[in-house]
Amino acid sequence: MSESPSRVGLNVAPAIQDFYPDDVAHCYGCGKLNGDGHQIKTRLDGDHTVTDYTPESYHTAVPGIAYGGLIASIIDCHSTGSAAIFAMRAAGRRLGDEVSPRFVTAHLGVDYLAPTPLGPMHLVGAEVETKGRKVIVDTELSVGGKVTAKGHAVLIEMPEGLRGFTS
Amino acid sequence: MSESPSRVGLNVAPAIQDFYPDDVAHCYGCGKLNGDGHQIKTRLDGDHTVTDYTPESYHTAVPGIAYGGLIASIIDCHSTGSAAIFAMRAAGRRLGDEVSPRFVTAHLGVDYLAPTPLGPMHLVGAEVETKGRKVIVDTELSVGGKVTAKGHAVLIEMPEGLRGFTS
Repeated sequence: MSESPSRVGLNVAPAIQDFYPDDVAHCYGCGKLNGDGHQIKTRLDGDHTVTDYTPESYHTAVPGIAYGGLIASIIDCHSTGSAAIFAMRAAGRRLGDEVSPRFVTAHLGVDYLAPTPLGPMHLVGAEVETKGRKVIVDTELSVGGKVTAKGHAVLIEMPEGLRGFTS
Repeated sequence: MSESPSRVGLNVAPAIQDFYPDDVAHCYGCGKLNGDGHQIKTRLDGDHTVTDYTPESYHTAVPGIAYGGLIASIIDCHSTGSAAIFAMRAAGRRLGDEVSPRFVTAHLGVDYLAPTPLGPMHLVGAEVETKGRKVIVDTELSVGGKVTAKGHAVLIEMPEGLRGFTS
């Protein structure tokens, strides 16, 4: 039985971004078809979602501290991925066996609690609400075990009209 | 009389980022000393602040549409720059004649009203409140005259403790 790279290994859930439809897989933050982008991967882990991302040396706010815009960006894509995961789970659909839904952000809020050291970021997402085409996701971002930023995002399943842009 | 490039031309106000202290001018979004970054410039224009930024071809959400994380990033740096401008104005200090204060983001909120076409972005910032070390800035981001995203940011003047990170 062959498996995609994201499913190799025990206890490693599939990355939702590997199952975005190809015509909407060009996101700079998380699109598998955007070779210039961050290509983050978000997975279900127990009851939560997780994303790990290591910034580049130049992603600074001030030297040694991660850029707040990058933090917002990674929380944004982590939240859209989490929304797809939570929506599939709510519908009883199995992650990794089919094309996933694709969510866009209606609102993104980020609270910067403390300077974030420029190191590997670990994001954990919690399902606040899943209702119809709307999902609300709260996120904690930590570096070295310390939570330095929190995200609150409202995601909407991408309407067909937006997908019309993608030709 | 010699002038810096940002002051050349009639009716062109100085860009606040050109007057950030060098030890805090490495921001990926707006630092003049970050050669890998966006190096956005924010200026006072009448009673508001303005920033113009043209994304790269790969800054996509889906093809033809700008990446929401980039939108959040540009609003973030536009807001910190706007906060410095509004704080200097409130204190009766003259932009461009001295080193500026440096603000960091405590909260960033972005409402995505419509898909943002991948083209030149124009941001206009309004001073909501300036009180002590805190400034609140609201922003409208438009492409081709249509507002597609709004920002609400709470900025705090950078404490000396954070500047201690900067070696």
